[in-house]
Amino acid sequence: MSFEISVPATSANIGPGFDVVGLSLSLYLTLQVTITAGGPRTPVLSYEGEGADEAPLDPYKNLTTRVALYVLRCNGISSFPSGISIHVKNQIPFGRGLGSSGAAVIAGVLLGNSLGNLNLSTERMLDFALMVERHPDNVTAALVGGFVGSYLRELDESATAAASVPLAEVLPEYPEDASEDWGRNPPQPPTGIGHYVRFKWAKEIKAIAIIPQFELSTAKARAALPESYSRKDVVFNLQRLAVLTTALGLSPPDAELIYEAMKDQMHQPYRKALIPGLPEVLNSVTPSTHEGLLGICLSGAGPTILALATKGFDKIAQDASAVFAKHGVQVDWKVLEVCSGCSVR
Amino acid sequence: MSFEISVPATSANIGPGFDVVGLSLSLYLTLQVTITAGGPRTPVLSYEGEGADEAPLDPYKNLTTRVALYVLRCNGISSFPSGISIHVKNQIPFGRGLGSSGAAVIAGVLLGNSLGNLNLSTERMLDFALMVERHPDNVTAALVGGFVGSYLRELDESATAAASVPLAEVLPEYPEDASEDWGRNPPQPPTGIGHYVRFKWAKEIKAIAIIPQFELSTAKARAALPESYSRKDVVFNLQRLAVLTTALGLSPPDAELIYEAMKDQMHQPYRKALIPGLPEVLNSVTPSTHEGLLGICLSGAGPTILALATKGFDKIAQDASAVFAKHGVQVDWKVLEVCSGCSVR
Repeated sequence: MSFEISVPATSANIGPGFDVVGLSLSLYLTLQVTITAGGPRTPVLSYEGEGADEAPLDPYKNLTTRVALYVLRCNGISSFPSGISIHVKNQIPFGRGLGSSGAAVIAGVLLGNSLGNLNLSTERMLDFALMVERHPDNVTAALVGGFVGSYLRELDESATAAASVPLAEVLPEYPEDASEDWGRNPPQPPTGIGHYVRFKWAKEIKAIAIIPQFELSTAKARAALPESYSRKDVVFNLQRLAVLTTALGLSPPDAELIYEAMKDQMHQPYRKALIPGLPEVLNSVTPSTHEGLLGICLSGAGPTILALATKGFDKIAQDASAVFAKHGVQVDWKVLEVCSGCSVR
Repeated sequence: MSFEISVPATSANIGPGFDVVGLSLSLYLTLQVTITAGGPRTPVLSYEGEGADEAPLDPYKNLTTRVALYVLRCNGISSFPSGISIHVKNQIPFGRGLGSSGAAVIAGVLLGNSLGNLNLSTERMLDFALMVERHPDNVTAALVGGFVGSYLRELDESATAAASVPLAEVLPEYPEDASEDWGRNPPQPPTGIGHYVRFKWAKEIKAIAIIPQFELSTAKARAALPESYSRKDVVFNLQRLAVLTTALGLSPPDAELIYEAMKDQMHQPYRKALIPGLPEVLNSVTPSTHEGLLGICLSGAGPTILALATKGFDKIAQDASAVFAKHGVQVDWKVLEVCSGCSVR
């Protein structure tokens, strides 16, 4: 028996939508899963592509297989079936703000669901993903695809406690001498942690990912943010986010409306220092200098820059790359489609 | 020559969309304008309906006619044409969070545009309105109708200065002895102060306005707000606003999705003390107690409560009224349609 799981890259925030919106993009994390009767008790992993030198191949250390085991154990199945081999092909670079860890989590949820024949609903799969990734933007977009917005529901007291258990309890570190009985009763996710809607997306809009060749941890990028915001800055983002989610679905896209609606005062100003050249890129690549450009922002926590455009993709990417080069930052770039979400085939 | 200007009531915020979203509702401010050759130099105003005992009938003091004169003077016409009489019929109660002043401003812009045959575009009329009302939510909804979101654009330095001149310079108080040359060169609005989009609205949703019988000034309701917000509260509102603007356009409406998406942490918690009974109304009228209810929030700065629902309108209104009555607050209530914007006929 064999099947293939495919999960897209995602870009979160899109300017003002901090921790809210996500966009699925046509780079994929793919798992080729084979189950052979009489095979070894422990899954065998192999890996090629982005992150091949970093991703652990021990199934009790690898994020995707640990999430799968979490899902299985929450559903009464205490260990992986025997004879599993998983070949991972990954196009999503690590630590660049393109949702690599969100994709690994969704792949794990899908893997657990398939291996256990659990038939979990999309909503329930999202609950499992949100127990691991506490921000809904990337995982929701990777799961359902397209351009999506999501909120974490206000839960009652016991559900809030259940949803906020430390990650170490959800995905425990397996000690070397762990027996099969170890860590069998993980914390169950409450139901309905997150809700989402899918926005429209104008089909003529593509995304240009301009990817600096260095990693920036989400934790570090988050530590740069302030704890509080002025009312003026909050209203700035609320106004733009409300317009942006609808404006990106209107055909033909209105560059004047969108460009201003992709500005942000919540995270980008504070992450400048972590990404040399960022302010200059944002200021020098504009709709007046680059026809077809609609807007430009940090992808997730960065360092990737995401430009949305209807044409002139190469010139936008080349000119942004040249600015980064002046700051000593080498970049790779890709023109991506907004794609549908994950699949299991 | 005669014409009629009609401008709807509006409800701003709708929970999380503080200073961002507005909804036009089927209560109207109507101006019946007649121009008689050889009539008096100064417009003659009469007024019936809501606010009839408060609204000034001196055209140099009345908000609508002062805005009309501002629009005329910005376009090279220094005074009202002779022989104008205006009969105002108003259904929008004053100081209740239903956009009465925004409607008066839009009526004034339309009046100036008509009296001067100016043929201003909708965008330019919005600029004039935003010189008077600095928050775009109510005026945009009154002007364009339906469910709309808007942002104030980041302007260059001179435009920012022009857009932020004191209101006293835009609409000067006429001294008793003002000659016709007085205040002839008001500050011109910069172009493109605000941008907006219209969201979809599911046609089965109606709005129930539960209107306490006391006035609450926007200034007082605004003074109750803090100057800064925690990142957690900001994300709470951003997540809900992103979902809400799309969720209210989906048919059939999803009460579970919408109810939570109409919650707010930016203004409602701080305005509780100004509106006796508000927390109890929000907590006791819910989709589980009232079938058909989708969500409930403060209308604008209050004190009106706005409930969105697909059925059970009377029961929602009666039960909310009963809670207010326990707190000694008498209310009036109306079931309203989301309507198209202003008109000149």
